[in-house]
Amino acid sequence: MDFLKPRSHRMNRRRRIYEGKAKVLYEGPEPGTLIQHFKDDATAFNAKKHEVIEGKGVLTNRISEYIFQRLNDIGVPTHFIRRINMREQLIREVEIIPLEVVVRNVAAGSLATRLGLEEGAQLPRSIIEFYYKNDQLNDPMVSEEHITAFGWAAPQEIDDIMALAIRVNDFLTGLFLGVGIRLIDFKVECGRLWEGDNMRIVLADEISPDSCRLWDVKTNDKLDKDRFRKDLGGMIEAYTEVARRLGVVQDNEIPHSGGPRLVQ
Amino acid sequence: MDFLKPRSHRMNRRRRIYEGKAKVLYEGPEPGTLIQHFKDDATAFNAKKHEVIEGKGVLTNRISEYIFQRLNDIGVPTHFIRRINMREQLIREVEIIPLEVVVRNVAAGSLATRLGLEEGAQLPRSIIEFYYKNDQLNDPMVSEEHITAFGWAAPQEIDDIMALAIRVNDFLTGLFLGVGIRLIDFKVECGRLWEGDNMRIVLADEISPDSCRLWDVKTNDKLDKDRFRKDLGGMIEAYTEVARRLGVVQDNEIPHSGGPRLVQ
Repeated sequence: MDFLKPRSHRMNRRRRIYEGKAKVLYEGPEPGTLIQHFKDDATAFNAKKHEVIEGKGVLTNRISEYIFQRLNDIGVPTHFIRRINMREQLIREVEIIPLEVVVRNVAAGSLATRLGLEEGAQLPRSIIEFYYKNDQLNDPMVSEEHITAFGWAAPQEIDDIMALAIRVNDFLTGLFLGVGIRLIDFKVECGRLWEGDNMRIVLADEISPDSCRLWDVKTNDKLDKDRFRKDLGGMIEAYTEVARRLGVVQDNEIPHSGGPRLVQ
Repeated sequence: MDFLKPRSHRMNRRRRIYEGKAKVLYEGPEPGTLIQHFKDDATAFNAKKHEVIEGKGVLTNRISEYIFQRLNDIGVPTHFIRRINMREQLIREVEIIPLEVVVRNVAAGSLATRLGLEEGAQLPRSIIEFYYKNDQLNDPMVSEEHITAFGWAAPQEIDDIMALAIRVNDFLTGLFLGVGIRLIDFKVECGRLWEGDNMRIVLADEISPDSCRLWDVKTNDKLDKDRFRKDLGGMIEAYTEVARRLGVVQDNEIPHSGGPRLVQ
């Protein structure tokens, strides 16, 4: 009988709710909770490019934990409850809104390409973009018109999402600037959290160098997933550097030669 | 001396303000006016496909005249003053807002592709889209965020544009339904019309089977530029049919064998 087995055995058989490109969600210990597991998989271009980068999941789990905890502290509602172990965190189960919410401060990536802007050009002001989460369609950009017409979110929910996105952008811009990093852009997801009859929009998913563009203020070195997308190498070192600057890993945990082993 | 030459000579030397893919704008007879000339050129896919369809300009001039005149009648402000000759109309000079405003009632074209919808599927409600007018960038879709951040239009102007677009959609849907045609989608442009210190957003450009998707209610036959885009043939016949149903060309002007000559 299942409950007689050692806990580790039972953990292995826990129900998998969802497997994404970089994360797995398992049923949580209590109703309304989930366990978010960070994989070592690095993917780009809708998973056309894929590699396993040993130790990445440990770093993204830690960095995301730190950021979500601080966001909870300043009253930005998130799904985050607490970190469980090196690769896993306990989160509230939310109804994910099928949008990638991108906030951009500086032209880079697809925005630079689409609008013919020079990568690195400061935008006149921060721009919020929405992409419909659908791998088969390559996550097409959508506008509020599409979102409301197809019922992916209501107008009031879009307002809430944009207000959340702006607060997160303000906080992250400051946080990273404090450690010598320029926040170019980032992607988040939001979800509906039901508490009785009340529903709130909360921040979900993760925030890490997997989902942000982070450039060193002095050198413009990329400290994010673009190292993987653009084959620049040194991805783990960059993620470790971000974690180190944020104080998330200690100096004695830092790898000496790019190996990810010591940060575990 | 120029003013001694016959008028037709002077007309030939009039100043060309702008040449687009299907139209030329010339300086008008009075300040604040322009002459809009409809060419026979048919282009698609950002002019990668191009052909001269004899007589098309005559039909689009007539159809657009009819629609803009009726819109003026119901109080939708437009740049249209009056038709001058078979291929030309007198319009007010406006400051064109660099956006293509697309209103969609039924899934077709790029929306069907981007969101994986079946062509011909009724949309849950009409959807307004904006594309940044820039041939080099292939007219990328943009959202209100991009439009306001880059100063292409102010938030109040976007509201005015959307209100205009909805009125035009309501009117055109009714007009075409009355003659057995389903309005699938259409594209318009808007401009700023200055009157003293006052500025108004008005409808500009043209409305014709070049800029609308029009399907026969009974047969679903395409009566628009998709005949050219999709190599279906019979483009002039389709445009003539639209003109005939709207009462813009008389029965005795209708070509017998697809030749465009008689409609001139």
